[in-house]
Amino acid sequence: MDEIRLSGEKTLVLASGRAHPELAEEIAKELGTELLPISAYDFANGEIYVRSSESVRGKDIFLLQSHPAPMNNWLMEQLIMVDSMKRASAKRITVVSPFYPYARQDKKGRGREPISARLVADLYKAAGADRIMSVDLHTAQIQGFFNGPVDHLFAVPLLADHIRARVADDEVTVVSPDTGRVRVAEQWAERLGGAPLAFVHKTRDVTQPNKAVSKQVVGHIEGRTCVLIDDMIDTGGTISGAVQVLKDAGAKDVIIAATHAVFSDPAAERLANCGAREIVVTNTLPIPEDKRFETLTVLSIAPILARAIKEVFTDGSVTSLFDGHA
Amino acid sequence: MDEIRLSGEKTLVLASGRAHPELAEEIAKELGTELLPISAYDFANGEIYVRSSESVRGKDIFLLQSHPAPMNNWLMEQLIMVDSMKRASAKRITVVSPFYPYARQDKKGRGREPISARLVADLYKAAGADRIMSVDLHTAQIQGFFNGPVDHLFAVPLLADHIRARVADDEVTVVSPDTGRVRVAEQWAERLGGAPLAFVHKTRDVTQPNKAVSKQVVGHIEGRTCVLIDDMIDTGGTISGAVQVLKDAGAKDVIIAATHAVFSDPAAERLANCGAREIVVTNTLPIPEDKRFETLTVLSIAPILARAIKEVFTDGSVTSLFDGHA
Amino acid sequence: MDEIRLSGEKTLVLASGRAHPELAEEIAKELGTELLPISAYDFANGEIYVRSSESVRGKDIFLLQSHPAPMNNWLMEQLIMVDSMKRASAKRITVVSPFYPYARQDKKGRGREPISARLVADLYKAAGADRIMSVDLHTAQIQGFFNGPVDHLFAVPLLADHIRARVADDEVTVVSPDTGRVRVAEQWAERLGGAPLAFVHKTRDVTQPNKAVSKQVVGHIEGRTCVLIDDMIDTGGTISGAVQVLKDAGAKDVIIAATHAVFSDPAAERLANCGAREIVVTNTLPIPEDKRFETLTVLSIAPILARAIKEVFTDGSVTSLFDGHA
Amino acid sequence: MDEIRLSGEKTLVLASGRAHPELAEEIAKELGTELLPISAYDFANGEIYVRSSESVRGKDIFLLQSHPAPMNNWLMEQLIMVDSMKRASAKRITVVSPFYPYARQDKKGRGREPISARLVADLYKAAGADRIMSVDLHTAQIQGFFNGPVDHLFAVPLLADHIRARVADDEVTVVSPDTGRVRVAEQWAERLGGAPLAFVHKTRDVTQPNKAVSKQVVGHIEGRTCVLIDDMIDTGGTISGAVQVLKDAGAKDVIIAATHAVFSDPAAERLANCGAREIVVTNTLPIPEDKRFETLTVLSIAPILARAIKEVFTDGSVTSLFDGHA
Amino acid sequence: MDEIRLSGEKTLVLASGRAHPELAEEIAKELGTELLPISAYDFANGEIYVRSSESVRGKDIFLLQSHPAPMNNWLMEQLIMVDSMKRASAKRITVVSPFYPYARQDKKGRGREPISARLVADLYKAAGADRIMSVDLHTAQIQGFFNGPVDHLFAVPLLADHIRARVADDEVTVVSPDTGRVRVAEQWAERLGGAPLAFVHKTRDVTQPNKAVSKQVVGHIEGRTCVLIDDMIDTGGTISGAVQVLKDAGAKDVIIAATHAVFSDPAAERLANCGAREIVVTNTLPIPEDKRFETLTVLSIAPILARAIKEVFTDGSVTSLFDGHA
Amino acid sequence: MDEIRLSGEKTLVLASGRAHPELAEEIAKELGTELLPISAYDFANGEIYVRSSESVRGKDIFLLQSHPAPMNNWLMEQLIMVDSMKRASAKRITVVSPFYPYARQDKKGRGREPISARLVADLYKAAGADRIMSVDLHTAQIQGFFNGPVDHLFAVPLLADHIRARVADDEVTVVSPDTGRVRVAEQWAERLGGAPLAFVHKTRDVTQPNKAVSKQVVGHIEGRTCVLIDDMIDTGGTISGAVQVLKDAGAKDVIIAATHAVFSDPAAERLANCGAREIVVTNTLPIPEDKRFETLTVLSIAPILARAIKEVFTDGSVTSLFDGHA
Repeated sequence: MDEIRLSGEKTLVLASGRAHPELAEEIAKELGTELLPISAYDFANGEIYVRSSESVRGKDIFLLQSHPAPMNNWLMEQLIMVDSMKRASAKRITVVSPFYPYARQDKKGRGREPISARLVADLYKAAGADRIMSVDLHTAQIQGFFNGPVDHLFAVPLLADHIRARVADDEVTVVSPDTGRVRVAEQWAERLGGAPLAFVHKTRDVTQPNKAVSKQVVGHIEGRTCVLIDDMIDTGGTISGAVQVLKDAGAKDVIIAATHAVFSDPAAERLANCGAREIVVTNTLPIPEDKRFETLTVLSIAPILARAIKEVFTDGSVTSLFDGHA
Repeated sequence: MDEIRLSGEKTLVLASGRAHPELAEEIAKELGTELLPISAYDFANGEIYVRSSESVRGKDIFLLQSHPAPMNNWLMEQLIMVDSMKRASAKRITVVSPFYPYARQDKKGRGREPISARLVADLYKAAGADRIMSVDLHTAQIQGFFNGPVDHLFAVPLLADHIRARVADDEVTVVSPDTGRVRVAEQWAERLGGAPLAFVHKTRDVTQPNKAVSKQVVGHIEGRTCVLIDDMIDTGGTISGAVQVLKDAGAKDVIIAATHAVFSDPAAERLANCGAREIVVTNTLPIPEDKRFETLTVLSIAPILARAIKEVFTDGSVTSLFDGHA
Repeated sequence: MDEIRLSGEKTLVLASGRAHPELAEEIAKELGTELLPISAYDFANGEIYVRSSESVRGKDIFLLQSHPAPMNNWLMEQLIMVDSMKRASAKRITVVSPFYPYARQDKKGRGREPISARLVADLYKAAGADRIMSVDLHTAQIQGFFNGPVDHLFAVPLLADHIRARVADDEVTVVSPDTGRVRVAEQWAERLGGAPLAFVHKTRDVTQPNKAVSKQVVGHIEGRTCVLIDDMIDTGGTISGAVQVLKDAGAKDVIIAATHAVFSDPAAERLANCGAREIVVTNTLPIPEDKRFETLTVLSIAPILARAIKEVFTDGSVTSLFDGHA
Repeated sequence: MDEIRLSGEKTLVLASGRAHPELAEEIAKELGTELLPISAYDFANGEIYVRSSESVRGKDIFLLQSHPAPMNNWLMEQLIMVDSMKRASAKRITVVSPFYPYARQDKKGRGREPISARLVADLYKAAGADRIMSVDLHTAQIQGFFNGPVDHLFAVPLLADHIRARVADDEVTVVSPDTGRVRVAEQWAERLGGAPLAFVHKTRDVTQPNKAVSKQVVGHIEGRTCVLIDDMIDTGGTISGAVQVLKDAGAKDVIIAATHAVFSDPAAERLANCGAREIVVTNTLPIPEDKRFETLTVLSIAPILARAIKEVFTDGSVTSLFDGHA
Repeated sequence: MDEIRLSGEKTLVLASGRAHPELAEEIAKELGTELLPISAYDFANGEIYVRSSESVRGKDIFLLQSHPAPMNNWLMEQLIMVDSMKRASAKRITVVSPFYPYARQDKKGRGREPISARLVADLYKAAGADRIMSVDLHTAQIQGFFNGPVDHLFAVPLLADHIRARVADDEVTVVSPDTGRVRVAEQWAERLGGAPLAFVHKTRDVTQPNKAVSKQVVGHIEGRTCVLIDDMIDTGGTISGAVQVLKDAGAKDVIIAATHAVFSDPAAERLANCGAREIVVTNTLPIPEDKRFETLTVLSIAPILARAIKEVFTDGSVTSLFDGHA
Repeated sequence: MDEIRLSGEKTLVLASGRAHPELAEEIAKELGTELLPISAYDFANGEIYVRSSESVRGKDIFLLQSHPAPMNNWLMEQLIMVDSMKRASAKRITVVSPFYPYARQDKKGRGREPISARLVADLYKAAGADRIMSVDLHTAQIQGFFNGPVDHLFAVPLLADHIRARVADDEVTVVSPDTGRVRVAEQWAERLGGAPLAFVHKTRDVTQPNKAVSKQVVGHIEGRTCVLIDDMIDTGGTISGAVQVLKDAGAKDVIIAATHAVFSDPAAERLANCGAREIVVTNTLPIPEDKRFETLTVLSIAPILARAIKEVFTDGSVTSLFDGHA
């Protein structure tokens, strides 16, 4: 039989939804490519239309979408883009969602609650996504919600490097703003050279039995520089409250570090005035100018995403980017 | 072996998202029941939280959601509700979406377009819906997008009954506003006693060869009362333009009938001033007060939905409600 | 670790069922390849046996089958071939079904009807097909019945080019034989340079109120050359009836164009004697000698299929073959 | 909350394809019910249309189809019926296929062969069947091809009871017509009171080393009444050949027993003239008058199917009908 | 049409694997029923055989299995039982796994690790389980690993009630043995009336900068009764080490509470000698006599499981058993 | 758009579970590669942990596991390895299970039995396996249990070549130890040049009517060398009993051949003392030193597995290795 043969070849295509064009451009630049040109617009009733202007047949597509408010809109846009690319014969579709949608709804806290983070994984799969790439998932178990490969990237090394330089001369304690992040604080503490831990917690002060319940610090922070960590800052209420508690308890100074700057109102105002020396975040979510303030430092996640995309495309190792942890 | 037996029993539960509470209440009243009490609210960044206050274990749930703008929000709310009920051991979940989301994106008009109406069916399935109920689908083929039962209800009989009374003394022509709805116009014509058909179409007038392309009527409408039909009215541009063309071509009068009143701006204004004698729609979508106007008639779809829900619950026949067509 | 590496390579294999060997050979010739040698025969009780004589491991297979009567036989043969190739480790299987089976059963016209066109998509998927390629689907929504890529090819440009040459000196009206194809007629009209539209329809003649119901033409056709279009001709009753109606209404001449020549008896006889100047079809289905007649023109679909297969295999663009529409 | 409750109830519906109406009627009579009225007809090009005239919503449907030639036609009819009932909200669909289609293609005898019996199970599942009921599967492993319950019924007890009466005074040997049915022959032998076994086999006669290969009997049959068993008789070549071999080897008499009377030409002629005293089969497949002959006995499978359907419907035990074996 | 109707009825069946017959008997007694009689034995090479001696057709089955060592054996037994019941037409199968297998492997701690807890959920689904019931999952996110209802029961109230009585006169601190259980400790603290929190952690003591890394307590425990909590005790190394740390740091007394008594060697010895006043666990796993010791208290989980099974069977509310949390 | 392209490349990776390291090493050597380095160990309670030390991203993985006792352990280990590799972005995973687990449970012999061989196929699929490779399946139908490619390899040619050399001067009869393997004996007979067949069977001796039931040989074996064949030897009871029967019936000599040496106690002892001249098996399962004995010959399956892996990797033909049968 006469055969028609071709040598195999693979082509990386970077595409993006409309939620965070700056990040998309930055990643494209890091990769040395250009974004796939896509028509996308909204119908009068909110329905979204998307269409690639170029063929994606046989391509290895990395489809970036950020998920700020209105989150449901951006999620649906991403799902529709996946559907269009699946039907256009893309070879593989990796959804790149630096801030995983609905990550906080990762379990049933009470009966009859949804597990929306699992639902999101199911929706990605139903639309046709083959793989997921995300940054600092609210809980690592979310990886298990998807029936396929999840590249879990970490911004913590990036943030920690920045902070280490700032606190070189300080005695540091890593502080979790509540009881749920103590394990993560421990990982931070290791990165900062074995710093001690503390956490903020509503409790009775056992040394003053008659006092009412209030927020207390468990752990040693007096006279120390506190690095207050979290994965995301939404309205900023808990974290700015924690700054106050730490200051009241004798902390010398407070630096806040978080990966995802959700910054719902009035987060920017609260953080600007909470008394922290510096607030360090990344740009997994867009931060508009009017939500930026003097003590805010925004580190770019683009180099990490670009490197991970390259490793995935070239069948390299994402794990190697993070000393075996991804 | 000692056995523990129970006689089987089934319980209908009507639940609703937050998009169109009036319709939900109306259906509940028709059924003689009350809506399932549900906590639902938005997080600051747009994430939705829902939780039923009562057990839904083993229940036969009909989950109504209307889909006005912002449509993606209401769709996600419905999906999250389905997820929560599936996980809470509901026996069966029928999503009742009177206006099927993304119904207009039901095919690839051009290469690389999504088929979002199929995607929506896949999302319902992924979330855990067992069945779909909807009204006057944009195209009947959408039923085939879902791998399971779809109860396709019709508002046309309701609308036609209303209009028949209004045009009892007129010579009527049924008019499709474009070439894609002529078949539907034919079904209308039958309901109105065998009225003739016409459609509006961009063309050269063959009797005046030198004239430029313009909208023309194909079919006989001079001196007749035109019933201009469509499944939905979004911004109202096409349909109010058609009224003008019909008037210019000698129509005596025009009545507009459509099932779904999307009414994106400036639909209300256009329709109020387009010269039609009456605009008849249903309340599959909420129509706020400021989008209502003098010549608008809104018929309630609630009785039809309630009857269909009852037939489904009691294992009766939905088909029988529509003379064999559903 | 010592690694065993190979450079990737892909190989196109064209295989065919037994329904239309001429078309298969024609496509193979266009591609410059040969058909996969396959043993296929029927057991005495109608069970079909198939087996490729050559390895298909890792191959990119395009599996052509045409679907004339007995259609169920050819469909099952195709499904069994897909199963055998899936189990023989084919890399990718594209079923090429120029005439999509059961395309007319694409919706529930009445309650309790099947949606057989969706069922066919499900059967292809269940057997192991990765992709579908088809020509002029009865309705474009059928693409949405398959959960994967569908290459929807068009014969209309081919047919229209042929007809444009024949009617260069005529005043043309494009006519739909019923109300369901007016949109398609509109697309034809554009291809023929903006010709006006008409359709045939059972109605009362409004200018002669006392006459009984009969078939009437809506639109201007008097003295004009009518191009009567449809996607398929089965027994030819409707379309040859439409020729008569057009002639009676004063049409100068009629040309019939349709993609799929199902030609169930007595189609050939009816068409030969219906008074049309020419009947133009393609060979998506085999047309035996005894169903050919003088005024019939059969255009070959093979070049279009071959080009599309090549684009799919080489990760080119099928859309580009049809000015963005596929 | 006001609740709408109904006591649960279930309703058995017996439906049938068009392949074997006599069997369907017989089962209905055994059950004391009537067949679901269904419209079913063929389009001119072989496409099948089906529609139930009555509601099947919430019903427990047993959908009988027999699979004589043209088998693919009857299989597709059954799949389409399943699709229509799934979409019409049937509660449960059990396909009753007494003669399982493509049962002989249950493994890959050679590379690149299909496993069509598995494909059939997948097609039933894809169409929407919940359960399968069948009789005397060619190999019991076929049960494992379906991901769900399979009620495997046995005609062997029925056949054996009949034969036991006929051979009461004979010395019986049970004979397998080839090497693949010796295990089944063993089960027969047990039912006939511990009769010895033999099988027919192409071999050199070891006692006459110079003779060419020919069909030989392995086992003791001289002067004995041979019960020659098989699951199905297709063209009857093997089995009537075996009769001759047995006679030549000194058998006193031969009775043939088989469950499925496929009877492709020239089976009837061969069997009538093969020298067997009696040929006993069941009516899992229709046997037209012109394929019946004097020595043929047809036992009805209807009572067994009816009893099994009743057990399934009433949540009884099918296993108990066959002493623990089903 | 004559219809055959039956009133619906449902029957609870409690079945059990061989891992923990005492627990199964206890639950049966609580429910007032008997266990399904099942034949189960091992082949010589370790393959397991199971078969119910009674029909399970149409039954609502609760299939208990405990998962002590050799865990893989008991898991496979449970999967095989599910397969057998699915194929025997059980109506619904709830796997009751009080100690969820592989719960600790719930995320990728490092690249290329499995997520075995998700795999277990997938295996249950693949075998045919409809629902899962479990007790005190290692992390609540595991509920999201299963695509269906998970009844998550809690032993913490049971344990806490027991301990509250024992420490009525003490000043209590709730202690997490590591940083990962602080949130759970917080929930315990609430149940014990708002007790303060502490956790054990490897760190440098910030007040003694020159000392090497060692285990330290973060939080106030001096002179207080420590309730040291965990979800499971495997070899007991971490938890008995924590007792020592607490004692060294001045704790007055230590009580250990954990739901799952894995008790791999040398857990019993370690716990008996670790200096804790009491070790309280439940019998979600069997605890053989030789692993019991004087300070061990074993509370029975059977009443909780029985009540939950009853709620599930009767379509009641499991959530209500735990004040809204399940 | 700037594109990032790479030429395709594929890399074979051979990985192995811990059940049979010698076989894994042998295959690696045949292929000229090394085994993937994997950490694998058991937790105290029997849970298994595995992790590859090297990246498997994009690799074509062949994952060998043998399945001796404790079989469930090795099966779970293999499933966990598949899960870890799927999540680590392996391109394709072929599970290589020379002795297919639970192959004997391939049908429901009685009602309510599981079909564990199908369950195993489902578990492989659920974990993420794309393909299965196995040797001499207990029944060929097991191939149909997996929804994907199964490479079914044969050890019979290897065994038969060995035996042919040993029996060159003998008059050979091939004997099946029971009625279920006669077909397989027939295939052996062909390989040995057309030898006659016999089988052992519990029956009354028809020539001595008053004797009780006992094991008898059906077929001619007196004075001949019997090759007694089976697919596996578990405890060896049946096969060593058959040797005695053959000897008693006058066989000159007996050689036993079987692919899978399960060798559960007391198989080794029984075989060593059963009187057979030689017992020939392969090393699809590990055979520890203490189960080896003088008359045992172990042939290596490694060359066959290595060649098949190479054919699969290079898109060659596995079928060609076995004259068209695989």
